[in-house]
Amino acid sequence: MNKHNYRVGRLPQGPRNSIADVAGVQVGHYTLAQGAQQTGVTVVLPHQRDPFLYKIPAGVCVINGFGKSVGLVQIQELGQLETPIVLTNTFSVSDMVKAQLRHACQQHPEIGRELPTINPVVLECNDGYLNDIQSFALTADDYLRAVNNATVDFALGAVGAGRGMSSFGVKGGLGSASRCVELSSGQAYTVGVLVLANFGRPEQLIFRGHPIGEALVAALLHRGYEVASHEPEKGSIIMLVATDAPLGSRQLQRVSRRCAAGLARTGSVYGHGSGDIAMAFTTAYTNQQRPVILPDTVLDPIFSAVAEATEHAILRALTSAVAVTGREGNERIAITSLNLDWQKILYE
Amino acid sequence: MNKHNYRVGRLPQGPRNSIADVAGVQVGHYTLAQGAQQTGVTVVLPHQRDPFLYKIPAGVCVINGFGKSVGLVQIQELGQLETPIVLTNTFSVSDMVKAQLRHACQQHPEIGRELPTINPVVLECNDGYLNDIQSFALTADDYLRAVNNATVDFALGAVGAGRGMSSFGVKGGLGSASRCVELSSGQAYTVGVLVLANFGRPEQLIFRGHPIGEALVAALLHRGYEVASHEPEKGSIIMLVATDAPLGSRQLQRVSRRCAAGLARTGSVYGHGSGDIAMAFTTAYTNQQRPVILPDTVLDPIFSAVAEATEHAILRALTSAVAVTGREGNERIAITSLNLDWQKILYE
Amino acid sequence: MNKHNYRVGRLPQGPRNSIADVAGVQVGHYTLAQGAQQTGVTVVLPHQRDPFLYKIPAGVCVINGFGKSVGLVQIQELGQLETPIVLTNTFSVSDMVKAQLRHACQQHPEIGRELPTINPVVLECNDGYLNDIQSFALTADDYLRAVNNATVDFALGAVGAGRGMSSFGVKGGLGSASRCVELSSGQAYTVGVLVLANFGRPEQLIFRGHPIGEALVAALLHRGYEVASHEPEKGSIIMLVATDAPLGSRQLQRVSRRCAAGLARTGSVYGHGSGDIAMAFTTAYTNQQRPVILPDTVLDPIFSAVAEATEHAILRALTSAVAVTGREGNERIAITSLNLDWQKILYE
Amino acid sequence: MNKHNYRVGRLPQGPRNSIADVAGVQVGHYTLAQGAQQTGVTVVLPHQRDPFLYKIPAGVCVINGFGKSVGLVQIQELGQLETPIVLTNTFSVSDMVKAQLRHACQQHPEIGRELPTINPVVLECNDGYLNDIQSFALTADDYLRAVNNATVDFALGAVGAGRGMSSFGVKGGLGSASRCVELSSGQAYTVGVLVLANFGRPEQLIFRGHPIGEALVAALLHRGYEVASHEPEKGSIIMLVATDAPLGSRQLQRVSRRCAAGLARTGSVYGHGSGDIAMAFTTAYTNQQRPVILPDTVLDPIFSAVAEATEHAILRALTSAVAVTGREGNERIAITSLNLDWQKILYE
Repeated sequence: MNKHNYRVGRLPQGPRNSIADVAGVQVGHYTLAQGAQQTGVTVVLPHQRDPFLYKIPAGVCVINGFGKSVGLVQIQELGQLETPIVLTNTFSVSDMVKAQLRHACQQHPEIGRELPTINPVVLECNDGYLNDIQSFALTADDYLRAVNNATVDFALGAVGAGRGMSSFGVKGGLGSASRCVELSSGQAYTVGVLVLANFGRPEQLIFRGHPIGEALVAALLHRGYEVASHEPEKGSIIMLVATDAPLGSRQLQRVSRRCAAGLARTGSVYGHGSGDIAMAFTTAYTNQQRPVILPDTVLDPIFSAVAEATEHAILRALTSAVAVTGREGNERIAITSLNLDWQKILYE
Repeated sequence: MNKHNYRVGRLPQGPRNSIADVAGVQVGHYTLAQGAQQTGVTVVLPHQRDPFLYKIPAGVCVINGFGKSVGLVQIQELGQLETPIVLTNTFSVSDMVKAQLRHACQQHPEIGRELPTINPVVLECNDGYLNDIQSFALTADDYLRAVNNATVDFALGAVGAGRGMSSFGVKGGLGSASRCVELSSGQAYTVGVLVLANFGRPEQLIFRGHPIGEALVAALLHRGYEVASHEPEKGSIIMLVATDAPLGSRQLQRVSRRCAAGLARTGSVYGHGSGDIAMAFTTAYTNQQRPVILPDTVLDPIFSAVAEATEHAILRALTSAVAVTGREGNERIAITSLNLDWQKILYE
Repeated sequence: MNKHNYRVGRLPQGPRNSIADVAGVQVGHYTLAQGAQQTGVTVVLPHQRDPFLYKIPAGVCVINGFGKSVGLVQIQELGQLETPIVLTNTFSVSDMVKAQLRHACQQHPEIGRELPTINPVVLECNDGYLNDIQSFALTADDYLRAVNNATVDFALGAVGAGRGMSSFGVKGGLGSASRCVELSSGQAYTVGVLVLANFGRPEQLIFRGHPIGEALVAALLHRGYEVASHEPEKGSIIMLVATDAPLGSRQLQRVSRRCAAGLARTGSVYGHGSGDIAMAFTTAYTNQQRPVILPDTVLDPIFSAVAEATEHAILRALTSAVAVTGREGNERIAITSLNLDWQKILYE
Repeated sequence: MNKHNYRVGRLPQGPRNSIADVAGVQVGHYTLAQGAQQTGVTVVLPHQRDPFLYKIPAGVCVINGFGKSVGLVQIQELGQLETPIVLTNTFSVSDMVKAQLRHACQQHPEIGRELPTINPVVLECNDGYLNDIQSFALTADDYLRAVNNATVDFALGAVGAGRGMSSFGVKGGLGSASRCVELSSGQAYTVGVLVLANFGRPEQLIFRGHPIGEALVAALLHRGYEVASHEPEKGSIIMLVATDAPLGSRQLQRVSRRCAAGLARTGSVYGHGSGDIAMAFTTAYTNQQRPVILPDTVLDPIFSAVAEATEHAILRALTSAVAVTGREGNERIAITSLNLDWQKILYE
């Protein structure tokens, strides 16, 4: 049984079923996997031009603000993205911010002098179970490595920023999915989602509508793992939405909010200790063209695409991830290696 | 097969499986069902004292703000509820606001003079498909009738404000559910939810994890109903959460946000034209006592209860509703009368 | 000494120094001044076309949300205005909402049926000191009268919705002002502000930078008025900004926020019990044209214009108002009739 | 003439007229003043216990979000402060975040492992005119130096984070002020404000109600300085409010919003490119005591105190600052050295 080729929802997928189905978007990883250091950085290039010169509309939804992501305040005010988006572990945010600043100043030495300063965007989850975050192992060079690795054919699961992440008591990490939408006007657009999944207790998991939490707990116990039943949620999830539909920042804020629907369908209730952050951007304005912004009245298919692609991206993070052993021998197993009713879970 | 006795989620229900499981909460309906007038008003009494004298903490989440509900701005600022909560149709909001004002002034003639004015809270959905909302049929007396009908044993479905509401192409309306939660500290609390469900296109419906939209569309077509496949979402949903847990207004805002999770699990993506509004209040301060506010760190079970009870309340609105024929012969069938695989939908 | 011809700030005024300097904007009053009924309704027509067909971008800032204004939630979500803006007393909001609904349904019988419902916008202050608000004296016809009275040459002070309003212990009411701005690009635009001023304790008043609160208290005491020194703020202010600059809804939200600066310069600290609400709209899209939205980087002169025009409009509400005696013989004197150092206050 | 002993507003000052008049609050600077490096870090210790163990209620108001401050999202969600507050230049935010993380992990090695991660709070303005921010000159040790320098008798003006800041075309920097308030209940509290002032164009300055912008421009030109008349606002201001009044996080959010009033009275219109951020915290819960939270109805005197102390703190930043020459010979003169009508400005 192929555990990667399942469907979620009703809308058609894009050719890669990833955020890179939105033309121009690329994703690069740098993965650090050495003993107690199981972490990394993932960079999303929203388009292929200089992001500081070609600022693009963006919107943010803070579903639950227990988090240390950087750059959200200015996007909320100005509705604009002017850097690549960086995903990493909670404690590496500072080094990645600095790496973005240094890189931008190399490109534009006037930044912070004749020009305004630049707004780094670094989003995070805490991989401290598997990774020794207190070692601050990632460096500014690792940021550049991730940028240089950017491609449309990027890996999912326990890679890049996803290396040390956990979800539902098993290995989490990077996931992605896409949907093709046709509006009532006949116009066709692509919606792509990338998630960094690090949330959820085992008993909560809903997989394609199947509430398999109880079975997952049993399977984990069967394999000798402890399951802390009353431990509060300590994870987080970052959800990025890309689209080529011409939308304004207020609309993209609305679009990003629909990630909450896809997230809920996997079992999340936006736990207290979870930094659940969504961001959406459009690539429709990455050159000098000024396509007319769509009216809000046609947004419903895009909203559906966001919900479906978010749910699918989270599930793909789970089904793509390999087992990882890290700090103090802590380990997270791959959900696909557990004895669950996969035929039903994936295909019924 | 009993179509009312199904379970949703993992947490135990309260004895009535309704918002009235939270001690002190009562609900009253006035239903108008005459020809083209298929509408009503539902009043939630948050406790049994004078709400203007015993203001209680409350929080609001505007999931999608396409709506005409009244009273939210002040609750967002002050975190307080000082009136009963009224549910009705979109065009009757004005008369219900006035009815609340008149009633409060009778009780407290100093309002708006020596005392500040009072903040009416009237939440709405548009029942214009079944009901002639342009006739403004509900009166101030109908508000008083609903208040006087308040009880812990109230009806669900096509009653009160739910009389003319539609959901997923079938009859919607009033739904309710409750959950019992035990915190890690051992303290036990009740969470109750009441919804006014008027949202969703048939193809979107997810029922207890089962994506039955396609089957629902087929069943509706089979019975001779038209299903407009690309019609934008025009409905709305109001979700009220009551709890006896001692929480502050910021926390109740967080609590109300979790309604979005339960709503999403029924298939909603918070459609563009849908006014999706959630409000939460606590009954813990309805007398002179001042129980210590719980820390945020124990909120997770309450969040789970909100998500489960919201999902359950929406499904109960569907399975409780009877068919209604209204304005210009428009009709909405009861979902329970459709030939669907109920054994699987309700119990597997 | 002419007490009407003073200057505020540095920017040039428009020809009328009123919101009607923005082409297309008209204002109509209906004033009720009979014994204990000292109140009214003021309608702002944002342009000369059907506002439901020609929806225009708008933004809102709730500076302090102790208020009962209706229609803000949907404008915050959709960034659109689709009705005239109504100002009135707190208790007449419901009747004005209903009047707007009825009027819109007469124009468009499909509203709430084939078409979505319409979002009435009715903003309010409490004139309960001078006016018997519990008598609900204003009717739907009065709304239509105000609409029919709309003109570019409207009165200020104790007229329309301003009839019963008080500010700083003296007579308040309607005020307006405008500013002409030239952007660095050379483009010229007009910014107009209309306020309904009903806020402020006497000791707080700052008039053109002069802290005259102490002198005002003395002058009031000298004339035999009681001044309650520790009474909490119970008033409110509504501030409307019109401009012909082509701006989007996010930008208009930013523009409306700058009313807080002008308001503060008159002595307000946004008192606890004051509903301080600002709204901004643009007339640049009132026909089929689609002028390109300005970049945020040129907004500073518009922000300055909003602050200056708001301050000036508030002061003009005071200096335009005549004395009014109302409910139970309560009276508010005109500030211009007090023995203050007007030469310094108005011209130095 | 003593240019430091002027009064602002009507309320009595605390003994130090600084944020340290709130018992337990201390402020420490580290100043770097070498050639092109004219910058620093200022740390506010909100109380004298471990802030991670004694988390205190806090609230935030983003008046204009053009800024790169870190830590606001979590305070908005949880209403809690769990670290010292750091002020520094825009590009040093990353190093100060890392310094806070390292310091906290030394105190609590379980952070990010058994315990949740910690939320660093680092607020910033851009001192790039005088300081070579691209050199990232501040280090983690400088953070510790500032912490160790914390005292109740701290300097104002061109010190710490204020070293390189500019305001209104002259030297800006650190300012502070306090007010004593007595509520109608007779209870007495202290409100203290600390600002990092780096905003404002010369022509905008209002000093104690005196619009001296024109005179300031003339004085600058007279001394040979260029004044770019149409340059957009590129500065920012951070405003911190401390109080010993027992308030909850929602109330502190309201309290922080009143900084906007004091800011406006100095001439600001919250310029487009200005990151205008306010934060308020209470020291009433810094031990195991749980004083009862005040009702919102008594907040007005506290709001007035915030507005007055903010205005005063900004003016004191100006009148305390000495001239600084920095990067590429750029200089900012002290406003007190300019030939202005100081007798009128400071005392009339």
